[in-house]
Amino acid sequence: MRILSGIRPTGRVHIGHFVGVFENWLKLQENNDTFFFVADWHALTTNFEDTSTLKEYTKELMKTFMAVGLNKSTLFVQSAIKEHAELMLLLSMVTPVSWLERVPTYKEMKQQIADRDLSNSGFLMYPVLQAADILIYKADGVPVGEDQVYHVELTREIARRFNYIFKREVFPEPKELLSKVPKMLGTDGRKMSKSYGNTIPLITTENEMSKMILPMITDPARKRKTDPGNPEICPVWDYHKAFGTTDNPEETQWVMEGCTQAKIGCIDCKKLLLKHMVERLSPIWERYDKITDDDVSETLEEGNAKASSIAKQTMEEARNAIGLMY
Amino acid sequence: MRILSGIRPTGRVHIGHFVGVFENWLKLQENNDTFFFVADWHALTTNFEDTSTLKEYTKELMKTFMAVGLNKSTLFVQSAIKEHAELMLLLSMVTPVSWLERVPTYKEMKQQIADRDLSNSGFLMYPVLQAADILIYKADGVPVGEDQVYHVELTREIARRFNYIFKREVFPEPKELLSKVPKMLGTDGRKMSKSYGNTIPLITTENEMSKMILPMITDPARKRKTDPGNPEICPVWDYHKAFGTTDNPEETQWVMEGCTQAKIGCIDCKKLLLKHMVERLSPIWERYDKITDDDVSETLEEGNAKASSIAKQTMEEARNAIGLMY
Repeated sequence: MRILSGIRPTGRVHIGHFVGVFENWLKLQENNDTFFFVADWHALTTNFEDTSTLKEYTKELMKTFMAVGLNKSTLFVQSAIKEHAELMLLLSMVTPVSWLERVPTYKEMKQQIADRDLSNSGFLMYPVLQAADILIYKADGVPVGEDQVYHVELTREIARRFNYIFKREVFPEPKELLSKVPKMLGTDGRKMSKSYGNTIPLITTENEMSKMILPMITDPARKRKTDPGNPEICPVWDYHKAFGTTDNPEETQWVMEGCTQAKIGCIDCKKLLLKHMVERLSPIWERYDKITDDDVSETLEEGNAKASSIAKQTMEEARNAIGLMY
Repeated sequence: MRILSGIRPTGRVHIGHFVGVFENWLKLQENNDTFFFVADWHALTTNFEDTSTLKEYTKELMKTFMAVGLNKSTLFVQSAIKEHAELMLLLSMVTPVSWLERVPTYKEMKQQIADRDLSNSGFLMYPVLQAADILIYKADGVPVGEDQVYHVELTREIARRFNYIFKREVFPEPKELLSKVPKMLGTDGRKMSKSYGNTIPLITTENEMSKMILPMITDPARKRKTDPGNPEICPVWDYHKAFGTTDNPEETQWVMEGCTQAKIGCIDCKKLLLKHMVERLSPIWERYDKITDDDVSETLEEGNAKASSIAKQTMEEARNAIGLMY
C-alpha cells in the first residue's frame, strides 16, 4: 500500500511529533511504500509574513526524518516537486469554493488564531494543495490525526469529481489512516505550543532534556512528597506511557504505588521517565549529530528524484484526461 | 518595453478578435518586446465541463497568431510554462480572498452566465493566475480592453504586496495599455457571441465571408432601397470603419450619401465592405492554409523556450525572496 504524509516546517520538531507521528511512520514504513515530505509550501499558507526560518526549519525537519530512522521511506521536500503546484491548479478547476469554505479547520483557525493573517487565498486553497500532494502519488493511505480526517474526505471528493468530469479514472480515492495520537502536554501542563514556550524539542541533549522534564508540572494536588498523587491527571504519566514505562509491569507498579501512596517523589518518578526517554532518543540524537549537509543533500536528491518521477507520470495522465496540449 | 497578453482558446477566433486585439498587437510588436500566449489554463476556469475542443482550439489559435503576422513576437502556450502555476501558488499566499471576491467581472459573470458552472475555486483564483502570467515575465505593459483594467490593477497590488512582505523588488508593477476596441456586432446586430450563432470567424474563405456579410442586419429603418438609412446605427458601417473604407474620402462619401440619400442599396454597400475585408484578410487566409503542423511545432518550440527561460529566472528570484529551499 502506498502511504503519504507530510509535516509543515513551521517550527522546531517537538516530542509530540515523535510520539504522535514519527513512531507511527516508522511502523508504517516496514510494510508499505511510504512517502514522507516536508510541506514547505503549506508552511507559507499561515506563515507567509515571516519566512526567515523557513529554509532552516525545512532542512532541520528533513534531517530529523533521517535521524529518527525513516530510511526505508521516500523522503522529499514539497517545493522540489513543482508538479504539486500544477496539479493544484488543475484540481482547483473542479473544486467548488463552497467545499473549501466549509472545511472545519478553515473557520476554526481563522477564529482562533489572532496573531497571524489568515485572510490570504493561499490559506483558503490549502486543502486543494493537500489534495494535490496526495493524489499526485496516488496514495492509498494517509496517516492523519482526527483534525485532518476531513481533508482526506475532501481529497476523495475532489478525486471523484475530477474522474467524473474528465471521464477517466486518473485518481484512486485515498483512505485516512487514523492514528491514535497520545496526549503529550507541555512542561506547564498546557497544550504544547510554541507560543506558550512549553514545548520539548525532539532533538536535544540529555542535560537539556532533564532541565525540561524535572521541573515539569505534575498532579497539582501533590504539593509535597507526602501528598498522594493521581497519575491519571499527571502529564508526566502520559510521557511514561509514551516512552515505555507501562510496558514494564514492575516499573508500572513502582510508579503507580509510589505516586498514589506517596512512597516516591515526583523527581524520582521523572528520573525513571528520563532514563526511558534518553534510552529511546539518544540514538536519534547521535544520528542527528552525525548527519552532514552532504548526507541531507544526498537523501534529498534520491527522494526528490523518486517523487518527481511518479509525479511526472501522474501529471501526464491528468493532462491527457483534461485534453491539455502540455 | 516588454508587453504581454493572452487569449483563451474557448472558441473559434472571430473578426472581433482581429480588429480589437490582433491589429493592436501587430502595431505593438514593431517597437516592443512582445509576448503573446494561448491561455489554455484560463480556458479551464470557465470551461472545465467540456474540454473536448481545448487542444484543437489551442492549436488553431496559435496558428492564427502566426497567420496574422505576429512573427516578431514570442508566441507560446501557457500550459507549457509550468512556472505560471508555481508562481500562482506563491502569489496566492499574499493575495487576500477579499481582493478576489471584489473583482467586478467575478460577480458579474457568476450572475450573467447561467449555462456554465462558475462556482469552482479555479474561477475565483483566475486573477491570481493572470497576475502570475504577467509578473513572471516582468511585463511593463498589458494591452487590455476596459473590462480587464481591474485585473492589471490587482496585479499591481499583488506585486506590491509580494515585494513589501518579502522585502525585495522582485516584480515591477505593470501598466494597462488600454486599447480602444472598435464595436463589431454579430450578423444579427446583437453582441457577437458563440451562443447567438452570429459570429464571423476570422479564418474563412471569400465565399463563406460573403454568405455572412451580405445578409447582415443593417439600419432597421431601411426596409427598402428607397428608404434612407443612417450609418451611425448600422452595424455594417462599424465594419467599414474597421476595414478602411473611412480612410478613403471618396468611398466614405459614396457610402454616406448613398445610404442617407437612398442612392445605393445595402447590398452595394456590403459589397464594398467585402472587397476591403477580402483585401485585408485573404493574405492571412493564404498564410493560414500554408502553415503546417510542423511550422506550429517549430514556432512553439522556440517561443516556449524563450518564455520558459525568462520564467525560470523570475522564479529563482521569487523563491529566493521568500526563502524557499527549492
